[in-house]
Amino acid sequence: MQFLQLRKNEGIATVTLGRGKVNAINEYVIDEMAGCFGMLAADHEVKAVIITGAGKFFSFGFDIPEFLSYPKEDFVRYLTKFTAFYTFLFLYPKPVVAALNGHTIAGGCMIAISCDYRIMVSGKAKIALNEINFGSSLFAGSVEMMKLLLGQRNAEQAAYRGAMYTAEEAYQLGLIDRISTEEALESDARNVALMYASKDGAAFKSVKNLLRKSAAEDMRRRERDSIREFVDIWYSESTWKTLQEKKIYG
Amino acid sequence: MQFLQLRKNEGIATVTLGRGKVNAINEYVIDEMAGCFGMLAADHEVKAVIITGAGKFFSFGFDIPEFLSYPKEDFVRYLTKFTAFYTFLFLYPKPVVAALNGHTIAGGCMIAISCDYRIMVSGKAKIALNEINFGSSLFAGSVEMMKLLLGQRNAEQAAYRGAMYTAEEAYQLGLIDRISTEEALESDARNVALMYASKDGAAFKSVKNLLRKSAAEDMRRRERDSIREFVDIWYSESTWKTLQEKKIYG
Amino acid sequence: MQFLQLRKNEGIATVTLGRGKVNAINEYVIDEMAGCFGMLAADHEVKAVIITGAGKFFSFGFDIPEFLSYPKEDFVRYLTKFTAFYTFLFLYPKPVVAALNGHTIAGGCMIAISCDYRIMVSGKAKIALNEINFGSSLFAGSVEMMKLLLGQRNAEQAAYRGAMYTAEEAYQLGLIDRISTEEALESDARNVALMYASKDGAAFKSVKNLLRKSAAEDMRRRERDSIREFVDIWYSESTWKTLQEKKIYG
Repeated sequence: MQFLQLRKNEGIATVTLGRGKVNAINEYVIDEMAGCFGMLAADHEVKAVIITGAGKFFSFGFDIPEFLSYPKEDFVRYLTKFTAFYTFLFLYPKPVVAALNGHTIAGGCMIAISCDYRIMVSGKAKIALNEINFGSSLFAGSVEMMKLLLGQRNAEQAAYRGAMYTAEEAYQLGLIDRISTEEALESDARNVALMYASKDGAAFKSVKNLLRKSAAEDMRRRERDSIREFVDIWYSESTWKTLQEKKIYG
Repeated sequence: MQFLQLRKNEGIATVTLGRGKVNAINEYVIDEMAGCFGMLAADHEVKAVIITGAGKFFSFGFDIPEFLSYPKEDFVRYLTKFTAFYTFLFLYPKPVVAALNGHTIAGGCMIAISCDYRIMVSGKAKIALNEINFGSSLFAGSVEMMKLLLGQRNAEQAAYRGAMYTAEEAYQLGLIDRISTEEALESDARNVALMYASKDGAAFKSVKNLLRKSAAEDMRRRERDSIREFVDIWYSESTWKTLQEKKIYG
Repeated sequence: MQFLQLRKNEGIATVTLGRGKVNAINEYVIDEMAGCFGMLAADHEVKAVIITGAGKFFSFGFDIPEFLSYPKEDFVRYLTKFTAFYTFLFLYPKPVVAALNGHTIAGGCMIAISCDYRIMVSGKAKIALNEINFGSSLFAGSVEMMKLLLGQRNAEQAAYRGAMYTAEEAYQLGLIDRISTEEALESDARNVALMYASKDGAAFKSVKNLLRKSAAEDMRRRERDSIREFVDIWYSESTWKTLQEKKIYG
């Protein structure tokens, strides 16, 4: 694995994303993530997983400069893999704790909200589903997970405004579950993971399915159409111009 | 248009309902509303719409005294149009801000909750889905929108009690998004509308569909049966007697 | 009726569960409950129902020591009846107020959350869906009702942690609607029941159906599979061992 670091310690696996300064997501990252989490699902020694980022970012989202040079069909293939990965994570058979060590933006936020618990560092870090601010839509599954987490009303405001939330604001909204500090993040995440790991694994998996499976089925059913619409808007004249001018991540 | 006033100003359209003292809703009002919003949906200069009421009321709801003289089939036709209109508004392709300038009751509340954002004046004004207090049921779509806004538990309490909420109480519940004053309402609503209008229109429409389309489909699927049950209860001996004695709106 | 006491007073029926010290639930209890609530649904004098427990417990849940001696098929039959009963209560055509006089645990909690309103005594009493702590799963319907009451995020935390909540904590979560005292519980519950009873019965029933029917249909559709999975985990080596060692209720 080129972009992921994996550690295991007394039943807790920690997956750390490191790619460039902002941990931008591309197809290689998703391929490695899917492989790594698939392997950990089958590893009987692993009771819970922590996902975090290297450096000052959890992830700033898609590597948009790279995607601007993709042929359309390659971008569609990437989006299909990306949305399949967050849905896999949403139904992951073991507990997953997101330790949000820094900015958690757009695609990075989508991965965070598919986990079972989010701890975020207080300070400059922001969390947002800010796609609308560069003229982009979202995916059906990402919107569904936001609705489940925040309720319809707050999910609408977050998606329509594309607001960048501090840890404190995100906690008020229900977008994260605990606020931590740079120093305490690792041990706080570990303690939550250990709490989850102490539960019976079969019971946890069954309860998680009861809580999430029908939503996941709905997400999967609507995802392909939503990717098509996302791509139409992405390549529209005005959005494409914004993406090229801003040279942003997302 | 006899009961609606329309202004347009730098991309923001404002639709003002004026009918009698309480802006009671009848079939003409809904026909004009549907026509006006349909036209604004196609108007490329309009980026967002504000809906408000003339005088001291947003709307006190249905013109019940008028409906008491309707043949049953005419009432059913009106209800079909009314529920189709709020569903149209719920999925409206542009942002809609409800500027609640006064009492927002029953049918008036149903229109308000189908919008994207609600600002309400503080003071004597109340907002309520109070149909149960005159022995009336609700519609499937109106209940679904309340559940989405408030969550199941608060939606149940609001519908079962028929409580009349002040702006402050409604804000606590999530039934409105901001409290304003008589003096500031227009400019507050305009500022929210401008924020929405600043977003890419295609992205907004797509995100709104992702947030609301499956709920709207469910609303439409269940609406016809709910109208039939509503009408059965409306014309039941006890409810009919209440409606005739109270000479209320709703 | 051996385990239920029924009183009627000015349109309000009170059903009190009394079985041993902790009001443990077995098949006889559910048979009596279903019969009693079925009878009260048809009793035109009854406008609202209060359900409560005798002594210091509302109910500590299933009579697990008894179920450990059941053949598997008898346990499945019991679970089918139990889940059918809470779904019946969830859609009960009259208002049901749960007066939680003490611990409201596991199966006891599932009955409480199927009612329209929960008042709980402050003090030592706890409310919890704590099945995961003895290695047990839950049922699809019970999880759905928790999601409706608490929202997805809080329902997940409650189910994953199996936390025992005080009345104050449960109120914060939305798991109960009011906090009371041992002395005031009966009159508080009665006042709430009278408020509900003052509404038009046909309108209440219709509004309750609009609020809950589609969720109930979803619960029923998924319940049989969830019982099968629940039973598989219940009789798994590790869970079975826990149940036998702890001699608990739940």
